[in-house]
Amino acid sequence: MENINREKEQAGIAAAQLVKDGMTVGLGTGSTVAYFLDALAARVKREQLNIIGVTTSFKTAARAAALGIEIVDIDDAPTIDLTIDGADEIDVQLNGIKGGGAAFLMEKIVAKNSKRIVWIVDQQKVHLDLGSFPLPVEIVPFGHGKLVAEFAQQQLHPVLRVQAGQPVVTDMGHYIVDLHLKIIDQPYELGRYLDSRVGVVEHGLFLNIADEVIVGRENGTEILTRQSLQK
Amino acid sequence: MENINREKEQAGIAAAQLVKDGMTVGLGTGSTVAYFLDALAARVKREQLNIIGVTTSFKTAARAAALGIEIVDIDDAPTIDLTIDGADEIDVQLNGIKGGGAAFLMEKIVAKNSKRIVWIVDQQKVHLDLGSFPLPVEIVPFGHGKLVAEFAQQQLHPVLRVQAGQPVVTDMGHYIVDLHLKIIDQPYELGRYLDSRVGVVEHGLFLNIADEVIVGRENGTEILTRQSLQK
Repeated sequence: MENINREKEQAGIAAAQLVKDGMTVGLGTGSTVAYFLDALAARVKREQLNIIGVTTSFKTAARAAALGIEIVDIDDAPTIDLTIDGADEIDVQLNGIKGGGAAFLMEKIVAKNSKRIVWIVDQQKVHLDLGSFPLPVEIVPFGHGKLVAEFAQQQLHPVLRVQAGQPVVTDMGHYIVDLHLKIIDQPYELGRYLDSRVGVVEHGLFLNIADEVIVGRENGTEILTRQSLQK
Repeated sequence: MENINREKEQAGIAAAQLVKDGMTVGLGTGSTVAYFLDALAARVKREQLNIIGVTTSFKTAARAAALGIEIVDIDDAPTIDLTIDGADEIDVQLNGIKGGGAAFLMEKIVAKNSKRIVWIVDQQKVHLDLGSFPLPVEIVPFGHGKLVAEFAQQQLHPVLRVQAGQPVVTDMGHYIVDLHLKIIDQPYELGRYLDSRVGVVEHGLFLNIADEVIVGRENGTEILTRQSLQK
């Protein structure tokens, strides 16, 4: 566990180096992003960087504000130059699953509006195929029982996410269903199926979205880029 | 206007006749459905019908309760036998646009879980093609400005729905964008495009959903069925 935190920290510190003066930066959510925020706040203070942040969750907004990073609403940012975010699982194509922290809807909206997207992960997140991490699906509360029943019928092994006996409610007011798929053979097909379901707001498959992944190691980082894949 | 109300009333009264003792009935939303609810409540009282209602909006829930119709949550109804709902525009294929009243997300969820779906409309709603009624799209508030800008770029002529200077908020906590398309040539393609957009919760295209449409006339009704189309 200590090693994992060290890897997360390495990735977070490396990502903070990518931020340049004058940038609008998308700020992800999660434990690895927390290391990035700390490192970024230190740089902002030390180097007097003039940057603006766009957040992906109420939690990150609060943390960034506490660290002295200026935050604007996504609709008030003309452009997002760079987004740094975590991922719960990535494959060797740089596709990923996000949503363990239930913030993936806002994360996806920020990502779709970013010029460059860099994910930061520890080594344990990198797999040959996606699916060992349960796939989160954000759904509207009304009729959620019927939708979960449909997913079960489709052999998608859904589990409604609960906390203290109540459904977890996202920042946007929705519920989360985790699909325990073990392996996702056809992520694009699964994504289209989920997009088409009435009551599904969004799913945690991030396909062809990340430009680069920084994988933390105990004593440094490894960089995976889309370009290096295409070679 | 008086004629239109008379047509709506005729359609509503005819639809109330379709309800049978013991049924679970999906109750739509809107001015035509209001006539149906009145007629149904009268039948329930007069004939001592034992029925259960599943509603599609807080407004309909309140009205049905006031009329003495028992209401259950959709997830507590094992099945919905029949749903009666309005539509803002229908074409000759029985496809429709719904959402003028901003309740189409819940209406679509109820429709998807109904064995039989009957729409009730006045004659002015029936057109050769869809699109003269603006197509409502329900979107999450976060980043809605970016999404509206994308729709504008795609020539979809979006207008965020506002009331008293503020975005209209749906029962589910979302915003509505109306697409002023005039004519929708390829409704299925448009539906798939909208489904795939991050931030879109649902759209008001109801394709291949209605089994039957009751069109009110001043002195009766005309019935359009999917079967009669296939002949």
